[in-house]
Amino acid sequence: MDHRPAKVTTERECPFCEGKEDQTPQEVYALRPSGSAADGKGWQVRVIPSQVPMLDASHGQEEVHGVGLYDMREGVGRHEVIVESPRHQHDLDEFSDAQVEQVLRVYASRVSELEKDKDLEYALLFKNHGLISGSAVDVIRHSRSQLVGLPIIPKRAKEELQMTKNYFQRHERCVFCDILKQESRDRKRLVAENDTFFAFCPFAARSPFETWILPKKHSVDYARLEAGSFSALASLLRQCLVRLRNLLDDPPYNLILHTAPFRHTHKNAYWKTIEKDYHWYLQIMPRLTMGAGFEWGTGIHINPTPPEDAAQLLREASTEEA
Amino acid sequence: MDHRPAKVTTERECPFCEGKEDQTPQEVYALRPSGSAADGKGWQVRVIPSQVPMLDASHGQEEVHGVGLYDMREGVGRHEVIVESPRHQHDLDEFSDAQVEQVLRVYASRVSELEKDKDLEYALLFKNHGLISGSAVDVIRHSRSQLVGLPIIPKRAKEELQMTKNYFQRHERCVFCDILKQESRDRKRLVAENDTFFAFCPFAARSPFETWILPKKHSVDYARLEAGSFSALASLLRQCLVRLRNLLDDPPYNLILHTAPFRHTHKNAYWKTIEKDYHWYLQIMPRLTMGAGFEWGTGIHINPTPPEDAAQLLREASTEEA
Repeated sequence: MDHRPAKVTTERECPFCEGKEDQTPQEVYALRPSGSAADGKGWQVRVIPSQVPMLDASHGQEEVHGVGLYDMREGVGRHEVIVESPRHQHDLDEFSDAQVEQVLRVYASRVSELEKDKDLEYALLFKNHGLISGSAVDVIRHSRSQLVGLPIIPKRAKEELQMTKNYFQRHERCVFCDILKQESRDRKRLVAENDTFFAFCPFAARSPFETWILPKKHSVDYARLEAGSFSALASLLRQCLVRLRNLLDDPPYNLILHTAPFRHTHKNAYWKTIEKDYHWYLQIMPRLTMGAGFEWGTGIHINPTPPEDAAQLLREASTEEA
Repeated sequence: MDHRPAKVTTERECPFCEGKEDQTPQEVYALRPSGSAADGKGWQVRVIPSQVPMLDASHGQEEVHGVGLYDMREGVGRHEVIVESPRHQHDLDEFSDAQVEQVLRVYASRVSELEKDKDLEYALLFKNHGLISGSAVDVIRHSRSQLVGLPIIPKRAKEELQMTKNYFQRHERCVFCDILKQESRDRKRLVAENDTFFAFCPFAARSPFETWILPKKHSVDYARLEAGSFSALASLLRQCLVRLRNLLDDPPYNLILHTAPFRHTHKNAYWKTIEKDYHWYLQIMPRLTMGAGFEWGTGIHINPTPPEDAAQLLREASTEEA
C-alpha cells in the first residue's frame, strides 16, 4: 500500500469546471440563465449525483434484516455534489459575498428537495476543504460541498437532538438560545457577529479554532431560513473563513451543517418538542490535530488551544483578503 | 502554521532508549534485574509519567463546577508511557513472542496499579503506531504505549458497556460470547486463532482491516487475565501485526484495549451485571482512511473494504517476518 501523499488533480483534469459537464453524471439542479440547456455551459452553481455515492438512490431492501445476531441495512439514500463555482476556484472565502449567498441558497433548496422523499429522514451537508496532512480528503481543488440524504437520523445528530430535548424538558428553553445569551454577554469566545448571526468558539471545542455560526433568532431548520437572511449568513461565514485563512495560512477544515431532521419525522411523539428545543448551526472544524488511540478509545478530544484564546486570535486576525 | 509533515526524531535524539533515562521523568515501574538501580540501565520495559500529560496527577478540584450554563472539570487523572524496549525499535511485531508477552504483562500490572487509586474509574491503554499521513502522531520511532487513568468512564466506553448490558438484559448472555460463537462457526471474518484467543474482523468494521482479539473464555477484565494466558495472547497479537505489515507494508495503526471499568465501580447498581455482560478485547485499527465531514456529522464510518475481504486477505498474508 502506498502511504505517500495523494497527488493533487490539475485544473486540466478537473471534472467540475465549466465546459466539462460531460465528465460528470447529469445535473439534478443548476443555477443557470433561463433557457440555457441542462449540462451545458453558463451555470453558476451545479448539483450532480456523486460518482462515488456513499448511499445509493435505488430504494430496494431498505428494511433492516438479520445476519445471525447482526443487523444489516442496505445503504439506501442520496448523495449529491454541489459544485459551487464554474471556475477552478478552491476557496469559499475567495468568492464574493453574493456568490457565497447563492451557494447557501442552493444548500437550502437541495435540502428541501431531499425532504420530499419520505423514505429519507435526515440531510447531512458538509464540505471538506484542503488537504489534511497531504492525504486524499480533497485532491481536486474545486470548491464544492456534499449533501447526503439518509434513511435514518444518524448517531451524532440523534445524540445532539436528545441532549437539546433533555435540556428543554428541564428548563423549557432552547439550549442554543441560552448559549447565545451567555456568549453574547461574555464575549470571550465571540469571533464575529452581525444583526442576524453570531459566530463563536464553543466552550468545549473539540478542535483548535472550532467555530459555530448560529442564527440569533430561534430557528430549527436551515432549509426554512427566511429569504432575507442568506446575505447576512454569507457575509459572516465568509468573514470567519477569511479570518481563519489569515490566521492559520489556509488550514484544512470541515464545514458541517447541523439542522433538524426532515419535517415529517417531527410527527414522531419522541421529537414532538423539536421545533422549540433544537436550533440549527454551521460548524467550522479546522483539522489541525489528528485524533489517535485516545480519541478512538474514549470519544474525548484533546484540544491544545482553549476556545477563549482561539476566539481572541480569530477576532484579531485580518478580515482583508490576502 | 506549518502544514508540512512532521520531522521524525532520530535515534540519537530519542529519549526512550537505554542510557537516556535522565532525559525522561523518573520511572514509576520497570522490569529490570533485581538489585539494579531505578532510572539506570538494564531494564527490559520501563514505565514513566508522560512529559505532556493529557491528565494530571494533582488531585485538586476534581468536582464538576458550573461556568454559567456549562460544566467544567479539571483534567485530573494519570498518564503514563510504557516504553516497550530498551532498544530503538519501533515495531511490536519485530519483538520476540517472549518480549511481547513481557509487554502485555506490564500492561496488566499498570492497569492494576491505577485501579488502586479510588478517584479513578477507568484505564485506557493504547498505542499509536506509525506516521499517519506524515502527521505528528508518532514522530519518535521507539515502541511504546500510553496508559491514561480517568476519573470517569469515558463516553465511548460507556456506550459499549451500555450496549452489552442491554443485550444481556434481553438475552441473559454476553454479546461478545455470542459473537465468538457465530464467528467461529462462520469463519468468514476469522483472521487467526489459538486455544485461548480468537482474532477476527468485526461485522461492521469502521476501518479497513480493523481486527479484534478476544479471549475465548468469558472474561471481563484484562488486568485479571490468568498468568498462563499471556503467552497465547502475545503470540496471536504478534501474528496479527505481522500479517498486517506483510499485507499492507507496515500501515499506521492504533491498538486499543477495551476492558471493564475499575472493579470498585462495579458496585454501582447500574453496572451490577457487568461481570456477566462485558468481555474485554484488543482492537487493532489500521489508519488507512481519513474521516472527514461525513464522519464528523454522522458518527457513521465509510469503510471501503468489507470485513470478509479484509479477513480473507489477512488470512492469506504471510506470517513470516520480512
